[in-house]
Amino acid sequence: MNNEQTTALEPLQQFRELIEKIKHYDEILGVIYWDMRTGAPRKGIAQRSEAIGTLAAEAFRLSTSSEMGELLAQLNESNQLEKLDELNRRLVKETTKDYERNRKIPPKLHHQYVVLTSQAESEWELAKENNDFTGFATYLEQIIAINRQFIELWGVQTSPYDTLLDMYEPGLTTVELDRLFEQLRARLVPLAEAISNSEHKPDTSFLQGTFDKEAQRKFSKLVLRDMGFDFEAGRLDESVHPFATGLSTGDVRITTRFLLNDLTSALFGTIHEGGHALYEQNIKDELTGTTLATGTSMGIHESQSRLWENVIGRSLGFWQRYLPDLKACFPGQLDEVTAEQFYRGINVVEPTLIRIEADELTYNLHIMIRYEIEKMIFNEGLSVRDLPEVWNRKYTEVLGVTPPNDAEGVLQDVHWSGGAFGYFPSYSLGNMYAAQMMDIAHQKLPDLDAQIASGQLLPLKEWLTEQVYQHGKLLEPSEIIARISGKPLESTYLCDYLENKYRDIYRLN
Amino acid sequence: MNNEQTTALEPLQQFRELIEKIKHYDEILGVIYWDMRTGAPRKGIAQRSEAIGTLAAEAFRLSTSSEMGELLAQLNESNQLEKLDELNRRLVKETTKDYERNRKIPPKLHHQYVVLTSQAESEWELAKENNDFTGFATYLEQIIAINRQFIELWGVQTSPYDTLLDMYEPGLTTVELDRLFEQLRARLVPLAEAISNSEHKPDTSFLQGTFDKEAQRKFSKLVLRDMGFDFEAGRLDESVHPFATGLSTGDVRITTRFLLNDLTSALFGTIHEGGHALYEQNIKDELTGTTLATGTSMGIHESQSRLWENVIGRSLGFWQRYLPDLKACFPGQLDEVTAEQFYRGINVVEPTLIRIEADELTYNLHIMIRYEIEKMIFNEGLSVRDLPEVWNRKYTEVLGVTPPNDAEGVLQDVHWSGGAFGYFPSYSLGNMYAAQMMDIAHQKLPDLDAQIASGQLLPLKEWLTEQVYQHGKLLEPSEIIARISGKPLESTYLCDYLENKYRDIYRLN
Repeated sequence: MNNEQTTALEPLQQFRELIEKIKHYDEILGVIYWDMRTGAPRKGIAQRSEAIGTLAAEAFRLSTSSEMGELLAQLNESNQLEKLDELNRRLVKETTKDYERNRKIPPKLHHQYVVLTSQAESEWELAKENNDFTGFATYLEQIIAINRQFIELWGVQTSPYDTLLDMYEPGLTTVELDRLFEQLRARLVPLAEAISNSEHKPDTSFLQGTFDKEAQRKFSKLVLRDMGFDFEAGRLDESVHPFATGLSTGDVRITTRFLLNDLTSALFGTIHEGGHALYEQNIKDELTGTTLATGTSMGIHESQSRLWENVIGRSLGFWQRYLPDLKACFPGQLDEVTAEQFYRGINVVEPTLIRIEADELTYNLHIMIRYEIEKMIFNEGLSVRDLPEVWNRKYTEVLGVTPPNDAEGVLQDVHWSGGAFGYFPSYSLGNMYAAQMMDIAHQKLPDLDAQIASGQLLPLKEWLTEQVYQHGKLLEPSEIIARISGKPLESTYLCDYLENKYRDIYRLN
Repeated sequence: MNNEQTTALEPLQQFRELIEKIKHYDEILGVIYWDMRTGAPRKGIAQRSEAIGTLAAEAFRLSTSSEMGELLAQLNESNQLEKLDELNRRLVKETTKDYERNRKIPPKLHHQYVVLTSQAESEWELAKENNDFTGFATYLEQIIAINRQFIELWGVQTSPYDTLLDMYEPGLTTVELDRLFEQLRARLVPLAEAISNSEHKPDTSFLQGTFDKEAQRKFSKLVLRDMGFDFEAGRLDESVHPFATGLSTGDVRITTRFLLNDLTSALFGTIHEGGHALYEQNIKDELTGTTLATGTSMGIHESQSRLWENVIGRSLGFWQRYLPDLKACFPGQLDEVTAEQFYRGINVVEPTLIRIEADELTYNLHIMIRYEIEKMIFNEGLSVRDLPEVWNRKYTEVLGVTPPNDAEGVLQDVHWSGGAFGYFPSYSLGNMYAAQMMDIAHQKLPDLDAQIASGQLLPLKEWLTEQVYQHGKLLEPSEIIARISGKPLESTYLCDYLENKYRDIYRLN
């Protein structure tokens, strides 16, 4: 070993140790957040938020330390960079990006933000429960004010909101997103109209009733198992707002919310979060202990949840296989329903108030509304006190339904309480990515439909592991989709998929 | 404000901030440990243990930092010390003790120990499940080896084991403990013999049966509520080995283990942990965010769990009030039982294998066995591979029962997997403290028996809050018992209490 190699190794090793430490803190914070959302006692929240603030501040300090700065400077020198393998090169690149971003934020402001958002989530829960937007508004105002400060510190590129978007989908801009949504709108709005004019409305009467919670849980677990969710490396819990969190590849947790009068809410919620979980459970071991051991973007992450939830979970083949199992969980309640009827019933298109319960088609309209409102907040200075009115007006205009209260309107989603502005577009991006991936999957796995119709979900999971999951953050979202399909993200696949599906269900043309 | 006061304030403020940070890390580690014991997925444990190691190392670094050393040196100067109020003086004293202790341990050894004991607990669970002592022995050997190193680093006073005892009951020595146990033995062994010769054996047949888990949970919660356990500041979960953990006064968690064929296991386990919880929930606000916001010793802590579990929970008055509620939870199963019969049945004295299921009298013999074995390990070099044999021999000699396997023998308790050598004596100390406290409580609260017999448990809880709980670690264990009773800890109160109780139940003399 010559001297040059020795000096190249040392900063790398120091860098990897520092990254591992940050990753450990992230993992621990992940457990604490999971705990807060799944039943931490209310009276401990204020004190817990302070503790979170302390630990997050320490992780932040490490990620912006002069030690990190010096190591990155050394590793980014071109003669050093070329000696690194792909993993380390990518790790240096991602960490440099975070470092440049984070060091612009004063540690005190970061700490304040962490404590604020930790407290805000349980305040949001309370506000939603009590339909009390005013009670939550003061938190939201502070969260937005700090996000505006962040944007200013990070620097505005084309618009302030673009700066936030980049956190969830690197490189994505409002220009591109406007274009994609415009295309969706151009094809999906006429489709929705044709559907509403169709005389062939699916029967949904069999979905009415009271469905035992434990039976719901049992069936959800059965599907998760068949999808390849590893219960020795994960768990299913309950929370007000369902979520997935990958603490490590050996500990990936999802939550759902069981509604007694709604069979589908917990079921599709579980499959959705299960899709996120498959991603996190199947990242390759090489990435363990690095900050690359996570999804590459929220759009790609949502592509997996939406793919499993909708493209698989709401397909005819899936229910040809699983309806008998579902019937066995609810004896006497679904005896007369055929797979075809069930499939049509769970795919009814109807403008509704709640995003997470929306059908595949109007779902994208829920996202467009949120995207437009977020742009108004950050690009046009929309104030918090005007949010309920704007929300309700947009729902009336776009979906033709008006929320009777804020709990079913502007307070329905958890995202803003955690400061996740710019996240919502990920869901529609996910729908688009998923449709594009599945188009190729059908070419590569010619037996796919037959496999799904016989409950063999693992070949698809293996293919997605190969193409997406294993890579974690090693590949950029654009690389993922290009390697799969040879093309950048396009909206046509989603539009084609939805048109085919709903033309059949609603007997159009 | 003159200059002297300014210089006095500054190190105090720095010190308090450092303490708060350490306390935050402790709280977070507490959540992580709780999570590992209540269902964290097995495949994530190795990685989680590494993360715990990193955070514990950081907390350890802070507690042994030169910053801490300098602040303590300044604050311990006599002219500074006298300016401090009681709380800060006590905080400086306790922290100095920890600092002196911890700085003798090399950080690497500490880190290794934390990671080892994090992993060992789930290995213990597995070993217990599979009755596989050998599988666990390698962990136990390492844990003991490191404890021996610790003892050497800390310094041996009278015997190596004394150095460990001091961690759980400050100032307690084997000399004193031998004396207390000798007194117990002198009065309790004849009592146990008289009981075994008595013809008046309680009927326990009604305790046989299958008892619905949800009904058990419901009744346990009812009792916890009446004890004053605040469910908004705590929760009840399930774990293999029941425990209580006070993360903050607003978040105190207890666990229990429901056995379908044993009504009393979960019930008395819950009341036991509930006693610990009352202590942690009622520490005064002043101590929040300091390392004094916890129980003052394990002996005092166990006094509260054992007091509620036994002196209250296994009393005749308690069951006069609660048996009808219990019957309502298990319709048809206990209809014919009277309070008197139930009381006698749950107080049957019988030498058994499992400590946590032992009666109040033989319980102390279970503790003596463990105490003797721990002394043998650390003072006489007893090796791990000989533990099962020694354990089984002592059980045969002392209790007349021989474990048929290690799961019901040496593997039954969680303590050693976490390195808690020196903890077990706390349980018998707790029994002694509890009896001494209750002797005074009966004098101070003349209506106490009538209150308990009518389900008014709060006056006792308030009295214990006043005397014990609120003070946290502000008072030493010896101060607590002296303030209550005007005397140091004595074994006579426990012996008197047990003699009175069992003479009546077994109709002796």
